[in-house]
Amino acid sequence: MKQLLLIGIGPGDPRQVTFEAVDALKRATVFFVLDKGARSDELVRMRRAILERYLPTGDYRVLQVDDPQRDAFASDYIDAVQDWHQQRAALYARLIDDELGPDDVGALLLWGEPSLYDSTLRILQLVRQRGTQLQLEVIPGISSIQALAARHQIPLNRIGEPLTVLPGRQLGAVKQIDNVLVMLDGQCAFADIDDPQLHIYWGAYLGTVDELLLAGPLLQMKTQILAVREQARLRKGWIMDTYLLRREL
Amino acid sequence: MKQLLLIGIGPGDPRQVTFEAVDALKRATVFFVLDKGARSDELVRMRRAILERYLPTGDYRVLQVDDPQRDAFASDYIDAVQDWHQQRAALYARLIDDELGPDDVGALLLWGEPSLYDSTLRILQLVRQRGTQLQLEVIPGISSIQALAARHQIPLNRIGEPLTVLPGRQLGAVKQIDNVLVMLDGQCAFADIDDPQLHIYWGAYLGTVDELLLAGPLLQMKTQILAVREQARLRKGWIMDTYLLRREL
Ligand SMILES: C[S@@+](CC[C@H](N)C(=O)[O-])C[C@H]1O[C@@H](n2cnc3c(N)ncnc32)[C@H](O)[C@@H]1O
Ligand SMILES: C[S@@+](CC[C@H](N)C(=O)[O-])C[C@H]1O[C@@H](n2cnc3c(N)ncnc32)[C@H](O)[C@@H]1O
Repeated sequence: MKQLLLIGIGPGDPRQVTFEAVDALKRATVFFVLDKGARSDELVRMRRAILERYLPTGDYRVLQVDDPQRDAFASDYIDAVQDWHQQRAALYARLIDDELGPDDVGALLLWGEPSLYDSTLRILQLVRQRGTQLQLEVIPGISSIQALAARHQIPLNRIGEPLTVLPGRQLGAVKQIDNVLVMLDGQCAFADIDDPQLHIYWGAYLGTVDELLLAGPLLQMKTQILAVREQARLRKGWIMDTYLLRREL
Repeated sequence: MKQLLLIGIGPGDPRQVTFEAVDALKRATVFFVLDKGARSDELVRMRRAILERYLPTGDYRVLQVDDPQRDAFASDYIDAVQDWHQQRAALYARLIDDELGPDDVGALLLWGEPSLYDSTLRILQLVRQRGTQLQLEVIPGISSIQALAARHQIPLNRIGEPLTVLPGRQLGAVKQIDNVLVMLDGQCAFADIDDPQLHIYWGAYLGTVDELLLAGPLLQMKTQILAVREQARLRKGWIMDTYLLRREL
């Protein structure tokens, strides 16, 4: 049995980490850092900053590995993602088999909340199916949507109503938007919506020194958000943003 | 300007509190504890345990106040809730005006995540409308649904799909349940669903010593969950539970 901790580390602010997460960091002997690309340099740095802050003795190994890239232009989204998951499963299985000894405790530092739009749990399921026995532990973390709500000081749901969170690519398919949280929206799907009753609460790089917040009637704010977003993306080379669209009655 | 901190304290485990939340606890001089009823004795105790753990010097005031009860049998749910919010706003306004001096920092310890099915932000909006000037700060916390996902080691959303969270009373209105998280379900709405493809991942008192977890095909698990739930509720006098219904393909 290989021991592996999936630790939610919040959206970027090292203070938005729980005591449970830090206890888990202290138990780990090997940290796997899987990432690739422009933005990931900075995300890797932020993860290392969390380790340095909470594990000052430095008594651990960090294994940084290039993660296979997903085919962003594949015609079938689900197929492409599943293919990517299989590739990652092969990589994870190899790392776990080779690098985790019987007394080791491995850890993955997961951005935000581990169960929200993160594929690690699914990939580890595939790793199990490949024959590696895993003893997992999952530690919740503050999600970017919670940081969004806190910074705008808004409830995420309206009284007695459902809450919906969806990836940007799904926003166009929603028949009537009343209260929808959007993540993973590289295409700025909000820009195609022309409903005068909607308000937008937008946030980027939440919890980090680069945090950006904008809110107001969607039709009034669209151009400004698009401009601010593009400027930030060009300056930093990457962006992570999320937003709430809400019908104001 | 009255200073007030809304601090998310997680679902019950004092270790599932963030460092940011503890920093906020340390800044507060007055804690408002508003609650009432059977279960609230224990919830109040749990809040006090968090204070004692993280503020060992005890250099603060705790104001415990009976919260007005909501009319659980009102025919119009939204009306009843809004009425209740107005009553609570009057109470909160009085407390803030009377008890918070210019150098005080007030704090409310909110269960789980402050923006998720919690009326405090809405009530403070009403307090502002009554003329009390407030300077708010919101600190995110781990929600019970995050604890549920972590304990069952499941992702909350499926690949590329939306995530829906809803109060129990809304479950009956969902046309096809594929992946739905349910909170606030005193009536066990899952018991009325007869879909053989659905799995249930259920958790009660998450993060506490009384934690209960059950999972499996809905039709197989229903009776057991109902029995375990009722037993626990009778033993403790109250219950807090949440669950995910997921179509297994
Ligand atoms: C792969 S998902 C992971 C979400 C993560 N598990 C969470 O709980 O926030 C990545 C998406 O999360 C959102 N996101 C993550 N961190 C963010 C941050 N610091 N600020 C704004 N959005 C963020 C963005 O929508 C981004 O496209
Ligand atoms: C008024 S809502 C508050 C939710 C809270 N803000 C959160 O983020 O978890 C109360 C509902 O949350 C869920 N809940 C809160 N704490 C829980 C716990 N420790 N275990 C299971 N469910 C819990 C239950 O569904 C309960 O009816």
